[in-house]
Amino acid sequence: MEYEVVDTQVSPTGRLEVLSRTEAAKLLDEGHGSLHELYRNCSLAVLNCGNELDDAKELLERYRAFDIRIIQRQRGIKLDIKGAPASAFVEGKMITGIREHLFAVLRDVIYVSEEIRGNPRFALNTSDGVTDTVFHILRNACVLQPMTDPNIVVCWGGHSISREEYDYSKLIGYQLGLRGLDICTGCGPGAMKGPMKGAAIAHAKQRIRNGRYIGFTEPGIIAAESPNPIVNELVIFPDVEKRLEAFVRAGHGFIVFPGGVGTAEEILYVLGVLLHPSNAEQPFPLIFTGPKSAEDYFRQIDQFIGATLGAEAQRRYQIIIDDPVQVAREVQAGIKLVRNFRKQQRDAYYFNSLLRIEHDLQRPFHPSHENMRKLKLQKNQPKHTLAANLRRAFSGVVAGNVKDEGIREIEKHGSFEIHGDSTIMGPMDALMSSFVAQKRMKISSKKYNPCYRIVAETVA
Amino acid sequence: MEYEVVDTQVSPTGRLEVLSRTEAAKLLDEGHGSLHELYRNCSLAVLNCGNELDDAKELLERYRAFDIRIIQRQRGIKLDIKGAPASAFVEGKMITGIREHLFAVLRDVIYVSEEIRGNPRFALNTSDGVTDTVFHILRNACVLQPMTDPNIVVCWGGHSISREEYDYSKLIGYQLGLRGLDICTGCGPGAMKGPMKGAAIAHAKQRIRNGRYIGFTEPGIIAAESPNPIVNELVIFPDVEKRLEAFVRAGHGFIVFPGGVGTAEEILYVLGVLLHPSNAEQPFPLIFTGPKSAEDYFRQIDQFIGATLGAEAQRRYQIIIDDPVQVAREVQAGIKLVRNFRKQQRDAYYFNSLLRIEHDLQRPFHPSHENMRKLKLQKNQPKHTLAANLRRAFSGVVAGNVKDEGIREIEKHGSFEIHGDSTIMGPMDALMSSFVAQKRMKISSKKYNPCYRIVAETVA
Amino acid sequence: MEYEVVDTQVSPTGRLEVLSRTEAAKLLDEGHGSLHELYRNCSLAVLNCGNELDDAKELLERYRAFDIRIIQRQRGIKLDIKGAPASAFVEGKMITGIREHLFAVLRDVIYVSEEIRGNPRFALNTSDGVTDTVFHILRNACVLQPMTDPNIVVCWGGHSISREEYDYSKLIGYQLGLRGLDICTGCGPGAMKGPMKGAAIAHAKQRIRNGRYIGFTEPGIIAAESPNPIVNELVIFPDVEKRLEAFVRAGHGFIVFPGGVGTAEEILYVLGVLLHPSNAEQPFPLIFTGPKSAEDYFRQIDQFIGATLGAEAQRRYQIIIDDPVQVAREVQAGIKLVRNFRKQQRDAYYFNSLLRIEHDLQRPFHPSHENMRKLKLQKNQPKHTLAANLRRAFSGVVAGNVKDEGIREIEKHGSFEIHGDSTIMGPMDALMSSFVAQKRMKISSKKYNPCYRIVAETVA
Amino acid sequence: MEYEVVDTQVSPTGRLEVLSRTEAAKLLDEGHGSLHELYRNCSLAVLNCGNELDDAKELLERYRAFDIRIIQRQRGIKLDIKGAPASAFVEGKMITGIREHLFAVLRDVIYVSEEIRGNPRFALNTSDGVTDTVFHILRNACVLQPMTDPNIVVCWGGHSISREEYDYSKLIGYQLGLRGLDICTGCGPGAMKGPMKGAAIAHAKQRIRNGRYIGFTEPGIIAAESPNPIVNELVIFPDVEKRLEAFVRAGHGFIVFPGGVGTAEEILYVLGVLLHPSNAEQPFPLIFTGPKSAEDYFRQIDQFIGATLGAEAQRRYQIIIDDPVQVAREVQAGIKLVRNFRKQQRDAYYFNSLLRIEHDLQRPFHPSHENMRKLKLQKNQPKHTLAANLRRAFSGVVAGNVKDEGIREIEKHGSFEIHGDSTIMGPMDALMSSFVAQKRMKISSKKYNPCYRIVAETVA
Repeated sequence: MEYEVVDTQVSPTGRLEVLSRTEAAKLLDEGHGSLHELYRNCSLAVLNCGNELDDAKELLERYRAFDIRIIQRQRGIKLDIKGAPASAFVEGKMITGIREHLFAVLRDVIYVSEEIRGNPRFALNTSDGVTDTVFHILRNACVLQPMTDPNIVVCWGGHSISREEYDYSKLIGYQLGLRGLDICTGCGPGAMKGPMKGAAIAHAKQRIRNGRYIGFTEPGIIAAESPNPIVNELVIFPDVEKRLEAFVRAGHGFIVFPGGVGTAEEILYVLGVLLHPSNAEQPFPLIFTGPKSAEDYFRQIDQFIGATLGAEAQRRYQIIIDDPVQVAREVQAGIKLVRNFRKQQRDAYYFNSLLRIEHDLQRPFHPSHENMRKLKLQKNQPKHTLAANLRRAFSGVVAGNVKDEGIREIEKHGSFEIHGDSTIMGPMDALMSSFVAQKRMKISSKKYNPCYRIVAETVA
Repeated sequence: MEYEVVDTQVSPTGRLEVLSRTEAAKLLDEGHGSLHELYRNCSLAVLNCGNELDDAKELLERYRAFDIRIIQRQRGIKLDIKGAPASAFVEGKMITGIREHLFAVLRDVIYVSEEIRGNPRFALNTSDGVTDTVFHILRNACVLQPMTDPNIVVCWGGHSISREEYDYSKLIGYQLGLRGLDICTGCGPGAMKGPMKGAAIAHAKQRIRNGRYIGFTEPGIIAAESPNPIVNELVIFPDVEKRLEAFVRAGHGFIVFPGGVGTAEEILYVLGVLLHPSNAEQPFPLIFTGPKSAEDYFRQIDQFIGATLGAEAQRRYQIIIDDPVQVAREVQAGIKLVRNFRKQQRDAYYFNSLLRIEHDLQRPFHPSHENMRKLKLQKNQPKHTLAANLRRAFSGVVAGNVKDEGIREIEKHGSFEIHGDSTIMGPMDALMSSFVAQKRMKISSKKYNPCYRIVAETVA
Repeated sequence: MEYEVVDTQVSPTGRLEVLSRTEAAKLLDEGHGSLHELYRNCSLAVLNCGNELDDAKELLERYRAFDIRIIQRQRGIKLDIKGAPASAFVEGKMITGIREHLFAVLRDVIYVSEEIRGNPRFALNTSDGVTDTVFHILRNACVLQPMTDPNIVVCWGGHSISREEYDYSKLIGYQLGLRGLDICTGCGPGAMKGPMKGAAIAHAKQRIRNGRYIGFTEPGIIAAESPNPIVNELVIFPDVEKRLEAFVRAGHGFIVFPGGVGTAEEILYVLGVLLHPSNAEQPFPLIFTGPKSAEDYFRQIDQFIGATLGAEAQRRYQIIIDDPVQVAREVQAGIKLVRNFRKQQRDAYYFNSLLRIEHDLQRPFHPSHENMRKLKLQKNQPKHTLAANLRRAFSGVVAGNVKDEGIREIEKHGSFEIHGDSTIMGPMDALMSSFVAQKRMKISSKKYNPCYRIVAETVA
Repeated sequence: MEYEVVDTQVSPTGRLEVLSRTEAAKLLDEGHGSLHELYRNCSLAVLNCGNELDDAKELLERYRAFDIRIIQRQRGIKLDIKGAPASAFVEGKMITGIREHLFAVLRDVIYVSEEIRGNPRFALNTSDGVTDTVFHILRNACVLQPMTDPNIVVCWGGHSISREEYDYSKLIGYQLGLRGLDICTGCGPGAMKGPMKGAAIAHAKQRIRNGRYIGFTEPGIIAAESPNPIVNELVIFPDVEKRLEAFVRAGHGFIVFPGGVGTAEEILYVLGVLLHPSNAEQPFPLIFTGPKSAEDYFRQIDQFIGATLGAEAQRRYQIIIDDPVQVAREVQAGIKLVRNFRKQQRDAYYFNSLLRIEHDLQRPFHPSHENMRKLKLQKNQPKHTLAANLRRAFSGVVAGNVKDEGIREIEKHGSFEIHGDSTIMGPMDALMSSFVAQKRMKISSKKYNPCYRIVAETVA
């Protein structure tokens, strides 16, 4: 099949980008594993927005001829682009939001490569060092805004959801937007797009011209969940773990819509953080919500959490079914508590620095067959550590489903094996099967072919 | 039934309003037919937005206790409001867009009363005088913007349309918005809201922060079609005819969605203008469009026009079914011709002053039973005059359906009688019956009770 | 002598001007006494800024070939200018501030001619009617800004002053500007330019980007005192009296620098207002100030006021010599009282509507030889009436000195005769002689030729 | 003597500053040679603006009790300040421009300490590495603005100049500002303040609201030449040499007013760069100018250059006496050539990266007695190397005159000795003596006590 492509040159828009000669040179150095390859692939993902394709490998293969290069001109840099997906253009002109995203990719790829990697001031092997890195990436992207009240609502949920669930997520976004709240998601379609659209309409009605539609992504997931052009603050983190940390440090309220393994990963990450004893006092509004039809779904999730992490974990969230106004009010009330807490503790509204995140949760997890097999999924460990390991298990399945590298590993070595106590593996198997049954694993209509195998072990 | 209401005080937003003591005093003078009554009723209509109620009489009766008064404070005026519909508020705070609309009402009611009525410089009994008045109202509302290219697309269509038609109108708005075009409608729900929502999302993606969502209304219709809060330039004209003239003078492209008698009125108005021999050379992009399901609808309209006004009239529009991208492209191409024509003629982009509009079309038509009966609906007259008379017939039915005064007249004196040649009355009857059958007459689900009776006369 | 001239076409800048066809047509109608002549002469005055010439008649004669016409283009109007003074241009491009002034002239000439003259809603023969007119002219020029605290300091003083006095007026402006105060003057050089320059530097240091430099003028004086391009809000009132009323209604604090008869006119006007019994309670900060060398000057003024209007008048102002910080502090303190008073009385900060101004003070005074001779300058009348008549006497001398019409009258009929009680005529003669001695009458270095003759009458 | 001081807390203004915990902590660490000390001293210098004191040592001693600390609040950081010079405040509120400067100091001190020092990506021992550092500091301070045409005029000249020279520098600034040019200086009073004031008035007349008043300084000089609050882009470079490089890389036109040794240092630096063979083709407008009274001054400078560096050096500048319009035109014409050259070479308008600067000129010169004595001031070396060495000699004298460390060295060890060929030492001695005679060495009126001794050696 042939895909329509466009060649073009674009200038920066809005935020003015200036590159040094050294930086530009590095981006031109080709080769596998090079900065150029990373930059090229993320750029392609951004340009592919609007095409419902959540398979990074297939994307790269479709647009093999795609390339992007920086050229220096007297008025600043330009991007010279060959073979870009035609869907990024209207009457031959690139959609401005996508143009902005291309420069966000450039900004973050350069920043991480030039200012963070190799700079001894960032101690990446400590909890504080990683947090400092996340802080710097956010600051460099101008996401940390002082002098503003807490109002960022993180919305998590699946990219492959039903029309009804999607419309529901728009209604939630609308109610949030009417209350002056901004939206932050993981980019991509489905539950990540709906709330932004709803909020955009509400912001228009409230004449909020600087509404924020924040998207946090990372090189592995961006191809599968390319940012919607409404996103007006896009940040590309170097890995899954820093992206997850950014959500919990920059967000003030958290809403979870129905989703698949990616959503489960996010839920377990946040529970892994909240169950840490140091965070017991932190107000942290966390609401699971969906339309009537999603009631069962959340019952399953709730049961899984109850069975594996217990009632303490269940106390950290509430489930609200089919009531957008109520969800918006609860989030707003929760954010008020966050505000008071930060004020009292003199912690910045724009960055939750008091939240304790173990280095264990920050360390990038590479989902190789071996790492997946070695995951410790037993009950004889602290709850927050078990949550962290469960998070890794789901993270591996996400990779096997939609990420380029993950798909290639599965093609080469077959399914991942996930071992653990039967008291954990049982509920996990049930949950995963229900995701498959509800078609939450992948967008494509083809039959889903599981990339994992669950192996329950009876504890002696 | 009880309707929830709110009392509040609001300050102007954005545009700064300053009233003289004289102006404020006039608005406080009560009594039937007073400026205060007009101001109060229009304000109530604006506040009722979001409630799907297209019956002006019922609205006024529901909120009998509603009142609005101007108070002077050291920092400027405030509005003191009692008994406002609760739907205009979120958590007790008035939606900002609605707040803006309240001040637009104030601005226009004052302007027409103070600067136009009684000022000898406006010769309201001449074509040029009325046009000058429309110009002044538009300028005072800051709608006439020099230094900008033509990009205003007027969207006409019904307020009572199917979900499918509504979604289609959003798609059209989206494609227009992606191309940097702005939207102008007659306010209200349905085909007047859809294109604005679609354009708002597209403008967000294109980072167009000053997208214009223009609404033209008048005191009779505003209660039935209250402006959506997305509208960010609202103008209240003193009557139907000046509002219609404003559309054709300020707009650059014209799209007609499916609708009922109001839409028919608009179509006949514009054909009445375009069929005038002086306007033969004017480029004037006019497209009728709808989803597949609306194909029959437009065939009927087209047949009616063919039967009454002939092929010349049919040449002034094109019908495009189920193709938003094509519609957007045709509009864009048509606007390009408008641009060239104005440039060549040195006529302003922001106000089409070369279009000839007979004073006949400008004179307010009061749809009394007598006036309706006396309408001249015969073929032995110039085509543009027949179009003007047909326009009046439809205008009368609109009044009988949804306007306060019209409903009261019908309640008192029974149906209007519309007389005319059977070669005109036949097609008209067919068209009206189809509107009834397709539930395009009124939103309410109750059985539609026609406010008119068609009487065909055979020409001797 | 040849004066360098430039032909050009300019577009509006900043504020967007839109003219109707009728308005444009009226401005093109030529002939003596026409709107076009008025518009042309004011425009020439604006363009002559920077040339130190305070003789309106000479200006008109120098640039006889000057003309300005409105042309309509698709993007709006343009001004087609022939024979403009070269000093308005830098490298062939008109200074932007002057360009803005040309459009301010256009706006005000049109507004007064189209919206006020002949509109029965303005009862120009009543005190309230004139005040309403002043209000409308100010509002149309966007000078009335709600939602802002009182901060406008009116600076009066001579256009023909010493270098030391000029530098002092800059220091005052600087101290006012540092305190966030804005400046309003009568345009022109000298004491009208200095405070604006000082404030502009202070505003730059305080990062006040929307500092206001307001200039109020009228067709008679504008040629002699053309507005400095720093003025960013220029209003052309139809006559001297409306201009004077605008100062006292829009200003919050008042500073008088040394000057000549124009300054004396302003002082007597404001005292005429303040001495009215209804205004006894109005806080009204009024400070006379100058450098050490101006001490004598203010002693003379003070004595003249004491001798003619008495101690009550002297209580309404204070004299501060050579202390810019103290002046700024006193003005600031006085404005605070104004603020409290308005708040308490619910009178707008942006327009002092409670100040009583007798219609007698508002009625345009035409300084013919007869009117000057008939002035009632006796003590047997209320103090505020005497002040009003003294104001007229000085106004006549201003006209004879610098205004086109006045100069022509004097050339034709010889000096004005000013009659009155010797107890008034004595001090007046002394004051006028000192103005002549101090070269405060006219800028030109040639010997001043008085345009008046003072005739003292002994009261029987 | 007692100096009035103020304690206060201030928030950031305009540009929003966000600090990480690590960064804030580092600034709180006290001790001699610490980041805190550097930050404190630069902040004090900024706050001392307006006091005409060009003696860094005396400044530090006057305000011994001064301190500044960062405090974290929920809405961002604040500065807690004790014992600040009262001249930075108006009615108890810090002048906004000074407030901005405090945060510019914070930004640059943090950036250099955190992102540059110790980061292996900056090879500070190479020409390219230093240039890259200068680029990064400028970019971080948002001085590099793409999408704008070249328009930055660097103005050099003395801080201790006559009233006439100061007024002349204002006239130059005015003519530059009228032509839309922006000003960049080394901060401080005199020839660094005049052009900015003149340009500010001209920008106001031209309605240029984003006029740039750029100041480049460094920790050693800032105390003696504290930035005028008009400066709206302040950058603190880590040393003299990077500051000088920033001037020539960011500026487009260069004007030199009369000055003392600091000005001589700047002239020799730029000649040192321009005389490098690689830069022979670079257009580089360089104009020496002053009022009539400065004619002799520039003749002396010109003779000194002729005698030491020869006619080739003299060809790189022109001298224009007493003609501000001509200077502005020449600069404008020169900048046009710069524009064409960059466009042709595809070099950025905002950063001249093609200019070759030897590492020799970049290496910080520490003016110890030994280093001064060892300076190679002979003719048997390339012209650009001799220029570089002469630059160092003047730089040392600047330090001995006004810098804290330099003054202390002289107090301890007596005058610097400057050795060299008599053909160079002769003209140098003449030049220096004339600076002393013309009181260009220091502001204070006390007799100037030379900090150097010139020793001529006859070449064998």
